[in-house]
Amino acid sequence: MSIRTADDYIASLRGRTLEVYLFGERVAEPVDHPVIRPSINAVADTYRLAEEDPELASTPSRLAGTRVNRFLHVTESAEDVVMQNRMQRRLGQRTGTCFQRCVGMDAINALYSVTFDIDAANGTAYHARFRSFVRQMQEENLVIGGAMTDVKGDRGKAPHEQVDPDLFVHVVERRDDGVVIRGAKAHQTGCINSHWLLVMPTMRLGPEDAAYAIAAAVPVEAPGITYIYGRQSCDSRALEGGEIDQGNASFGGQEAMIVFDDVFVPARHVFLDGEYAYAATLVERFTSYHRRSYVCKTGLGDVIIGAAATIADYNGVATASHVRDKLVEMAHLNETIYGAGIAASHESTPTAAGNYQCDDMLANVCKHNVTRFPYELARLAQDLAGGLLVTLPSDKEFESPVTGPLLQKYLQGRAGVSVDARRRMLRLIENLTLGRNAVGYLTESLHGAGSPQAQRVQIQRLMNLEEKKALARKLAGVDAAVKDAAAESRAQEPGPCCSPPRASRSRA
Amino acid sequence: MSIRTADDYIASLRGRTLEVYLFGERVAEPVDHPVIRPSINAVADTYRLAEEDPELASTPSRLAGTRVNRFLHVTESAEDVVMQNRMQRRLGQRTGTCFQRCVGMDAINALYSVTFDIDAANGTAYHARFRSFVRQMQEENLVIGGAMTDVKGDRGKAPHEQVDPDLFVHVVERRDDGVVIRGAKAHQTGCINSHWLLVMPTMRLGPEDAAYAIAAAVPVEAPGITYIYGRQSCDSRALEGGEIDQGNASFGGQEAMIVFDDVFVPARHVFLDGEYAYAATLVERFTSYHRRSYVCKTGLGDVIIGAAATIADYNGVATASHVRDKLVEMAHLNETIYGAGIAASHESTPTAAGNYQCDDMLANVCKHNVTRFPYELARLAQDLAGGLLVTLPSDKEFESPVTGPLLQKYLQGRAGVSVDARRRMLRLIENLTLGRNAVGYLTESLHGAGSPQAQRVQIQRLMNLEEKKALARKLAGVDAAVKDAAAESRAQEPGPCCSPPRASRSRA
Amino acid sequence: MSIRTADDYIASLRGRTLEVYLFGERVAEPVDHPVIRPSINAVADTYRLAEEDPELASTPSRLAGTRVNRFLHVTESAEDVVMQNRMQRRLGQRTGTCFQRCVGMDAINALYSVTFDIDAANGTAYHARFRSFVRQMQEENLVIGGAMTDVKGDRGKAPHEQVDPDLFVHVVERRDDGVVIRGAKAHQTGCINSHWLLVMPTMRLGPEDAAYAIAAAVPVEAPGITYIYGRQSCDSRALEGGEIDQGNASFGGQEAMIVFDDVFVPARHVFLDGEYAYAATLVERFTSYHRRSYVCKTGLGDVIIGAAATIADYNGVATASHVRDKLVEMAHLNETIYGAGIAASHESTPTAAGNYQCDDMLANVCKHNVTRFPYELARLAQDLAGGLLVTLPSDKEFESPVTGPLLQKYLQGRAGVSVDARRRMLRLIENLTLGRNAVGYLTESLHGAGSPQAQRVQIQRLMNLEEKKALARKLAGVDAAVKDAAAESRAQEPGPCCSPPRASRSRA
Amino acid sequence: MSIRTADDYIASLRGRTLEVYLFGERVAEPVDHPVIRPSINAVADTYRLAEEDPELASTPSRLAGTRVNRFLHVTESAEDVVMQNRMQRRLGQRTGTCFQRCVGMDAINALYSVTFDIDAANGTAYHARFRSFVRQMQEENLVIGGAMTDVKGDRGKAPHEQVDPDLFVHVVERRDDGVVIRGAKAHQTGCINSHWLLVMPTMRLGPEDAAYAIAAAVPVEAPGITYIYGRQSCDSRALEGGEIDQGNASFGGQEAMIVFDDVFVPARHVFLDGEYAYAATLVERFTSYHRRSYVCKTGLGDVIIGAAATIADYNGVATASHVRDKLVEMAHLNETIYGAGIAASHESTPTAAGNYQCDDMLANVCKHNVTRFPYELARLAQDLAGGLLVTLPSDKEFESPVTGPLLQKYLQGRAGVSVDARRRMLRLIENLTLGRNAVGYLTESLHGAGSPQAQRVQIQRLMNLEEKKALARKLAGVDAAVKDAAAESRAQEPGPCCSPPRASRSRA
Repeated sequence: MSIRTADDYIASLRGRTLEVYLFGERVAEPVDHPVIRPSINAVADTYRLAEEDPELASTPSRLAGTRVNRFLHVTESAEDVVMQNRMQRRLGQRTGTCFQRCVGMDAINALYSVTFDIDAANGTAYHARFRSFVRQMQEENLVIGGAMTDVKGDRGKAPHEQVDPDLFVHVVERRDDGVVIRGAKAHQTGCINSHWLLVMPTMRLGPEDAAYAIAAAVPVEAPGITYIYGRQSCDSRALEGGEIDQGNASFGGQEAMIVFDDVFVPARHVFLDGEYAYAATLVERFTSYHRRSYVCKTGLGDVIIGAAATIADYNGVATASHVRDKLVEMAHLNETIYGAGIAASHESTPTAAGNYQCDDMLANVCKHNVTRFPYELARLAQDLAGGLLVTLPSDKEFESPVTGPLLQKYLQGRAGVSVDARRRMLRLIENLTLGRNAVGYLTESLHGAGSPQAQRVQIQRLMNLEEKKALARKLAGVDAAVKDAAAESRAQEPGPCCSPPRASRSRA
Repeated sequence: MSIRTADDYIASLRGRTLEVYLFGERVAEPVDHPVIRPSINAVADTYRLAEEDPELASTPSRLAGTRVNRFLHVTESAEDVVMQNRMQRRLGQRTGTCFQRCVGMDAINALYSVTFDIDAANGTAYHARFRSFVRQMQEENLVIGGAMTDVKGDRGKAPHEQVDPDLFVHVVERRDDGVVIRGAKAHQTGCINSHWLLVMPTMRLGPEDAAYAIAAAVPVEAPGITYIYGRQSCDSRALEGGEIDQGNASFGGQEAMIVFDDVFVPARHVFLDGEYAYAATLVERFTSYHRRSYVCKTGLGDVIIGAAATIADYNGVATASHVRDKLVEMAHLNETIYGAGIAASHESTPTAAGNYQCDDMLANVCKHNVTRFPYELARLAQDLAGGLLVTLPSDKEFESPVTGPLLQKYLQGRAGVSVDARRRMLRLIENLTLGRNAVGYLTESLHGAGSPQAQRVQIQRLMNLEEKKALARKLAGVDAAVKDAAAESRAQEPGPCCSPPRASRSRA
Repeated sequence: MSIRTADDYIASLRGRTLEVYLFGERVAEPVDHPVIRPSINAVADTYRLAEEDPELASTPSRLAGTRVNRFLHVTESAEDVVMQNRMQRRLGQRTGTCFQRCVGMDAINALYSVTFDIDAANGTAYHARFRSFVRQMQEENLVIGGAMTDVKGDRGKAPHEQVDPDLFVHVVERRDDGVVIRGAKAHQTGCINSHWLLVMPTMRLGPEDAAYAIAAAVPVEAPGITYIYGRQSCDSRALEGGEIDQGNASFGGQEAMIVFDDVFVPARHVFLDGEYAYAATLVERFTSYHRRSYVCKTGLGDVIIGAAATIADYNGVATASHVRDKLVEMAHLNETIYGAGIAASHESTPTAAGNYQCDDMLANVCKHNVTRFPYELARLAQDLAGGLLVTLPSDKEFESPVTGPLLQKYLQGRAGVSVDARRRMLRLIENLTLGRNAVGYLTESLHGAGSPQAQRVQIQRLMNLEEKKALARKLAGVDAAVKDAAAESRAQEPGPCCSPPRASRSRA
Repeated sequence: MSIRTADDYIASLRGRTLEVYLFGERVAEPVDHPVIRPSINAVADTYRLAEEDPELASTPSRLAGTRVNRFLHVTESAEDVVMQNRMQRRLGQRTGTCFQRCVGMDAINALYSVTFDIDAANGTAYHARFRSFVRQMQEENLVIGGAMTDVKGDRGKAPHEQVDPDLFVHVVERRDDGVVIRGAKAHQTGCINSHWLLVMPTMRLGPEDAAYAIAAAVPVEAPGITYIYGRQSCDSRALEGGEIDQGNASFGGQEAMIVFDDVFVPARHVFLDGEYAYAATLVERFTSYHRRSYVCKTGLGDVIIGAAATIADYNGVATASHVRDKLVEMAHLNETIYGAGIAASHESTPTAAGNYQCDDMLANVCKHNVTRFPYELARLAQDLAGGLLVTLPSDKEFESPVTGPLLQKYLQGRAGVSVDARRRMLRLIENLTLGRNAVGYLTESLHGAGSPQAQRVQIQRLMNLEEKKALARKLAGVDAAVKDAAAESRAQEPGPCCSPPRASRSRA
């Protein structure tokens, strides 16, 4: 019953009884809704890539004993973590949008080690349950969405302090065979096009928040779930009939609010239940993976660089030195993101559970650059596009017998470039900088996997300031009068490197 | 018959027979079209401001012998030029968009001095004609749009070299009483909501381009003109019925392509006709004014700073140090733009014709910062807004009996802040950073009045590099061996300041 | 007995009995000390400019009833404030360093209005005393240094809370005819080359700090004062004999710690004594002037741009597009500083005392950019200089019969450019980016007139956040449901501009 | 006869007959010269690290069949390339300066593969010669300096076009047993403290430049070599006797011009002789290694972050939010450099010769960030240091019985922090931002391993623009009308990744 192809995947989504609301109405069949379909196409492309380039998008799994889709793989080496990044960049290049499957991949890997640690400390049996769940997903080759971000209410208050206890997902009832949960998760990327959701707590919890310490797998179509589809800039262009004004008609992202109205979860799908002290660990391991997963944006960066270069070419200015220089700057920024991300993956170290966890400092550095550089790439792309980017008439004008010929006459540019090619390229840049995929390329780059300040807090924790201060004191001669450099250096303490895992690795 | 109020103005636009096309169809009455109306409201607000704050938005005119709207005023002092900037910022604050009337104001002032110079050199009589035209506009209190940017075809070729001679507006026929023009102007901000258009050449012209050296006033409803309305990000939200999802439902910008299909212009409305050598002068004077007119964006900046502060407040994080710091950075950048702009105006000097022309270097510096800083303000505003900015469901969901209550329950934030207030503020930030007014706040900031490279070219021309090199050689002692600082300084040449107009003023 | 020329000025400094210490020894005659002399030359150039360009560097004074040096002038119009900036830029261009006379100029103007306000509130007679003092300075044409920055001790404690009460300058004894003060002022720019010092408190004071609320004029050679000269990067090159390795052998800055060891001040020279509530006012008015005085750095910017352009020329790469682009960027940043500074001056408004005070927001914005952009100019200048900037052998090598010929052979560049010209230009860039004048161009740009955070605090105070929030609420329709743009705008409150002085001016 | 310890190394440098000139005089014994000694100490620390942490600074070598110093190792895996970076960062942390041994390490690895390729193409025997030379270096554990950068003369001309043929190093005589070379290499980091020099061409050469295509090993003390020592900012403070004003008295860099006046090289030490087509290959491989070697600057970055944190602590402001935020920003930028550098190393691939070559794009990206971020770190460190950084009196003042007590009284800060500790920390920051090690931390970061534009040219070459354009065209639907996302994707070409080596690896 395993899904094998992109078509299989799309077929698997049909006929499900989901409560999905968009523009105030229940959606009969999400697969056929023009606003929703591009986000399904994006996930479908992850299957297609596995068909076309199995080395990149699938891998042998010890857990499954067979080859599995890389999005469902529990990493077995640093190279496995690196290969996720390569796959992510490729999919960003192919779709020009968020393909929505990384949350699940990163959640699997975080829960894998955290369930192991909880069991080791508490004698629970979450890890075996979780391995069994993952094996099932691998066998059926399903899509898992992660559901972490609670709606949060008043941000100055803990979950149990909120005026409404449901503002964080929590257990409202315990039965013999499982638990009942209530609450809502906001900004859920890729849920309606998934098969399962991994529900996880969203932040550090205290003893009084124990009912909020719940992690569990839930089928997307479980009774009691309502999906409220978020709107995006220019989303309704998908309803206009034409393709060109959408910019990227094939692919898009998807974000919805998921409301859990007393959803039952059987015990075998519960992976954390009350061990509040592990909520922070789970969030940290997940965000560490997920922050370097944002190298996917370098794939979108490749698309926007290509689009900017193409429109410069169409405008006849491709050889101007300032144009070339802007393209180089775009590439430099894009590869700077990639460098930190793939470095974080290469520097992965094994967890107690045996899977590999990326370097936390570099993962945060990667994501933090993602909160800045795509905005600069977008600005430079708009610079190279020219003002027509935002004054181009609608597709319908080009089809009109009155205005169509006028536009064909007056929008001609460099010889050999069709007016249509030019406007398609402009609409693609609009799509990535103002339109639907600007949501994924810009705002999601800012807030996904934690807003900028979240990375700064984590960088502050990881930066080993005391060690750095010791380096400075030694060289300044503060700790002791330094008479002889040789003598001084001999006495030197072992010499801290930037972060403990790295330092220890350098001796391994 | 003079327009006095905002309502007069709106009434004046009704019932005209304009050929306006939008979404493939002819628009029956632009005033009532929901997509077009916000741009009419923005111009109306310029009249309203003149009613409410006459000191700011109107001024006594020597030319008219009476008080006139400031947008129609020929500047009589540096203070007049400064007051334009104050008015522009205020209107930016009031409308949160481009109010579209500056092109005409700047065109009037540029043509005023250029027609004077042409007449002085050639014995022509353009200046008197032009004064007469401006007086009429002042008396009737009309809106003038400027029409400069030709569609340009192949950017590597001069007008007369294009495969189609119409790719720049030019004279196609000469009659006893006037000329007939043909061509198209792209990206025309504020045309359908104007009464008259000032057609001007778009760049430096040579002798073979003499037919393209044409400046003239044309009524907006002149026979032969077609307007093709440009589409903007999220423009169709204005057609959805609700107000909230528009973000700023009252005000918006307007850009159209204007096609001149053999439009007749009587001689009394022609202000340049064949004097190709003055095309560059006209463009330079106009862009100099117009580049410092971009201080209007600091008014939009005030709105986006206010919106970012408000949403931070609604989210309950207004006192976090990083939030306050980001708001300070936004204000600093916004005021940096304002400083250079208003400095350019303060440093105005009289032209031979007697009106005042701003400092060209500082005007270019102002505009060049406008091509950068609004993007950073937009990024910071999105940072403070949080991810809900792009995942918020549509207005219709809030009205739905099914999803409305769920959203009211789950989107509550800090006590005392309504969900509606929160989403209105988010939609305003979306409007300014991704939606309709992102067009005016971002992309127009980049390309309006010349793309970034145009300012760099002008800064290079104006930077007096040889004088700066002389300063360095003198201090380095390259020009002569320097033995005694006193002797050396005494021999010093008069000491160049940064630009000739300023240097000369410092001695006046 | 008035000083008229630069030579007069230098003569006036000779033979004074100052306690000046440098490199551990008392300096016999500062005027002849090679390390100190360049800073005297810089002040001398302010006199020389007044001789050469009296319009720029002197002005008629109502107070004196005659023409006075502009550094001693109490401003009588906004144009007077603007002219200070023009003069500052010119002197920066001429000297390539801090010419050290602005603190006095800005202190005069701040004390002028503050003494007036104190008298008006308290019935004291400081203002007349102060006018009398200034008149004397004008008549004798003397140099006034300002002494504000206390050494401060523990920055977390108020003056009266310090373990040593002398860590802020304070009154230690009261006599019939005056007061005795004790304490020390750090980082005093231009003191040994001044004739008088204006001692002022450094920060907001409370009632318990009343003894610290002291402002007074003290002659530089008053008994009890000790000057401890600060060392600068590369200062000792002035002792090596040659000129070239200094980079800018003629001009430099000067900073010293001034220790007041029970210095008597007669009552007629006391301008604030115990009115602690005015300490903050004085500091704010002074820093407001002084922050926009940092446009002087655009004069140094002109020199470094000129030097960078010259070395690019010498290296034979002046026409490379990236070289030209870097020079344009340098000019753009430099003029951005200038724009905000001169705008602050143009926007000056009269104080109750009648002199003119610049716009505080723009002054802070100017200074805040000065804390950033010179570092970027320095980086770009080093980029254009090439690595030889830091690997060039010493001047003595060029004079050596062994190595001199080798260097002449191997350091030749473009034909027609002497090796000496090339190294002089490199040494000038080293001087401004790493050497003595890097102190003035970089670090002083950062900390002089308040460190960056001081400007941010002030920008936060001035940014009118509540008004900006009201703008956003109105446009978002939060305050009221908005049905009709016309009706809504009519009801609009008076429309706040960016800052109260400006808003009121727009109606004047 | 192998060197084992830091002391052995220093002893090995004594008593050599080098022609070294500094301040116009021949240096009798460089080891004992106070200006030169810190640079010898820095290299000595590379030996000391190998003693203290052999895993980090030495490694088993297949070539030697034994453990060798990592600086002499021919890499045998990507992990070997990564370990270089770890060692480099550690040494940067320990010395706070350039330790000068990377050029040799990178030159060994570049020549290893290039000699292999030349032999394969031409049947020459350079590779065996070179292996033999490296084995000898490993056995004796010597320091190799690389000598690449020619003095270049007129940069617009090729070597053979220069007015003086010696402006690039070239063969001037051929003998039976070897060649004689003449010319000069500028900016040679670490030569006088080396044992051997690897002379290499500096740029792409053509057929007429064949005599310039020479790579060879030369002993540092070979007859005919003259070293002219470059001067650095504040170098003469090392001659003043005290230690504190030096900032970092133990460690420093060294750069000299090396003049080769007819130096004989026996054939066994010649590794390229006339094969001009391989000059570009050699330069590219060397700079690729060397550009990611600049992760060493993150070690200096750790020191400057530590120093900034310490001085903030001493000043009593360590907990201010803006202070913490600046430290986080410094860490973020520093780790961004590290990420790209270590990523370049991790992504290494084997050469035909069998050693490992790093990823060229990421190496260039690493270095390009190094040309920017250290300047920002330096600015932020100066910000946190406060103005005392540049106004602090000299060490001699602190020793003086007159001024010493005054300074001890008035420079006291937070309780428990000695004045001496405070000034030592300030001098360390001065050393890194204006003084001797600013040369290594800033200007060398800009120009070492190629100036910024060199990286931009290389990024442009490597950015695969045509592939990126194809991605954009596909998504925009330019290449073909796109009806069905599935069909479209199926037809997709193999999907280019960012660079060919990486793409191919992803399938391996």
